[in-house]
Amino acid sequence: MITSTFPTLEDIQEAGVRIRHMIHNTPILTCSAIDSLAGCEIFFKCENFQKVGAFKARGAANAVLKLSEKDRKKGVATHSSGNHAAALARAATQAGIPAYIVMPSSAPQIKKKAVQSYGGQITLCEPTLASREATLAQVVNKTGATFIPPFDDIHVIEGQATCALEMWEEHIPFDAIIAPVGGGGLLGGTALTTHYISPNTKVIGAEPEGADDAYRSFQAKKRIPLSTPNSIADGLLTSLGELNFEIIQEFVSDILTVSDREIIEAMRLIYERMKIIVEPSCAVPLAALLKNKEQFHGKKIGIILSGGNVDLSKLPF
Amino acid sequence: MITSTFPTLEDIQEAGVRIRHMIHNTPILTCSAIDSLAGCEIFFKCENFQKVGAFKARGAANAVLKLSEKDRKKGVATHSSGNHAAALARAATQAGIPAYIVMPSSAPQIKKKAVQSYGGQITLCEPTLASREATLAQVVNKTGATFIPPFDDIHVIEGQATCALEMWEEHIPFDAIIAPVGGGGLLGGTALTTHYISPNTKVIGAEPEGADDAYRSFQAKKRIPLSTPNSIADGLLTSLGELNFEIIQEFVSDILTVSDREIIEAMRLIYERMKIIVEPSCAVPLAALLKNKEQFHGKKIGIILSGGNVDLSKLPF
Repeated sequence: MITSTFPTLEDIQEAGVRIRHMIHNTPILTCSAIDSLAGCEIFFKCENFQKVGAFKARGAANAVLKLSEKDRKKGVATHSSGNHAAALARAATQAGIPAYIVMPSSAPQIKKKAVQSYGGQITLCEPTLASREATLAQVVNKTGATFIPPFDDIHVIEGQATCALEMWEEHIPFDAIIAPVGGGGLLGGTALTTHYISPNTKVIGAEPEGADDAYRSFQAKKRIPLSTPNSIADGLLTSLGELNFEIIQEFVSDILTVSDREIIEAMRLIYERMKIIVEPSCAVPLAALLKNKEQFHGKKIGIILSGGNVDLSKLPF
Repeated sequence: MITSTFPTLEDIQEAGVRIRHMIHNTPILTCSAIDSLAGCEIFFKCENFQKVGAFKARGAANAVLKLSEKDRKKGVATHSSGNHAAALARAATQAGIPAYIVMPSSAPQIKKKAVQSYGGQITLCEPTLASREATLAQVVNKTGATFIPPFDDIHVIEGQATCALEMWEEHIPFDAIIAPVGGGGLLGGTALTTHYISPNTKVIGAEPEGADDAYRSFQAKKRIPLSTPNSIADGLLTSLGELNFEIIQEFVSDILTVSDREIIEAMRLIYERMKIIVEPSCAVPLAALLKNKEQFHGKKIGIILSGGNVDLSKLPF
């Protein structure tokens, strides 16, 4: 059953056309060494090569371009210290409108610089959720900017859904697609697109054990946010959004969890065998596949490599 | 003037067809952030994604396949602790013949394992050139295997020349192509192919200051091997081969040198902006370009990223 509030295939296809000039159609890579090890055929969709280094460029671009002419002029705002902040700053700047980014004063200098380099205007806040939300409310109040949330937003989900759309355009008969899950924008979008195009293909979420609210929520059939998530996969520490959880409950087959040790092993395998750079969050789906080999044996599996923004001086190996 | 001993364009094209089933036609990547910084359009030929993680797979494959039926049965041999050893082991195993690899006992365990994983039979020797050569002579004497040198060999050069052949098949009108230079197999092959296909395109060698025998030899118009090279670019410490120097003198426009600091900066730029893994030697051409920006301003430059085999626990940043 498709709730009327979920994006349709047409919505997602239109989003694909809408944002095409602002993003890369990223390549799909394969690696025979990892295939041998995994016992299946893996197709890696390389969003680590995406603009701003992560799939977040898609949702941010779509959200900015979906604004009404009137709202657009006043700009956009968000609170984030991660890839969404950089992605929104870039999308807004490309559209010629301001982006107001609320960041905790404790955010690393390199992340502040990234947002600034994409043209974002930073307002610092205390590193608490209360301060973030209060500061964002002030900024929105003062500027009239539209708040673009990082994942719990229909236009953001539509944008993230275009990643799977590109995968399906390659005409690979995926038996399953595995995506990492944090807030659920990418996993939700992937599940929607895949449901419309190939309903028999399983879409599976992969999550760190230390931030397994999606796994728990999926089992319990109700949202169970985590208060103290802890994992090296720093892009997946957020809890599922409401809309995201609705989509995931409906269209995702399973959520698999992995330990940080398994994440680091998979990350190292990608570095050594594929010679590409991924952030820890990005290695979670491969870790989940390798932990559950028998389930995927001999099959064609799509894996979304979600991003490549990692502090090279702090690699876990 | 083409000396009759140099491979012809037909030789190189035949090599391309001969080895096609054993290697990847590697992708060419671009990066708008690095282009802005450099002030020109750069096309990166990604041999770091090549089989065994380096362009060496090409020359080794061609040398193995060029053996006579009679010689082939007895196998191949070489002394090397680097990418050539792994490449030769893999090519021989694929051809169903033995590969005898002489390696210094001091070689890192990981390199020995790589050679073994490709099916190479290792004979250890003392870590001196004399011991390497004596041990290799013994192995060849005992087995009747054919010695395949890492660069000073016409069939190896022919194989490396297929890399530029693939670049030219993309119909990009390169103003210049920059390749790293160690023994001169890749640079020589690149220069030959480019001379035949686009004689007005400059082919430039890039070399570490601490191992600048190609630069010195090129200036002096005679080979000046180095006795104590020293650079982070550990794949470029060897001195030019004889045949390689002949080709380079004839068809290379210039040799540019860079410091280790400049190599590390370029390497970091490739990691952070392109999200791909390269070994230090591989970053030398970009370092040379960035050091000589004015020379390349507004032009279309091909850069060969030669390999991606790096110890991730020892990154210089």
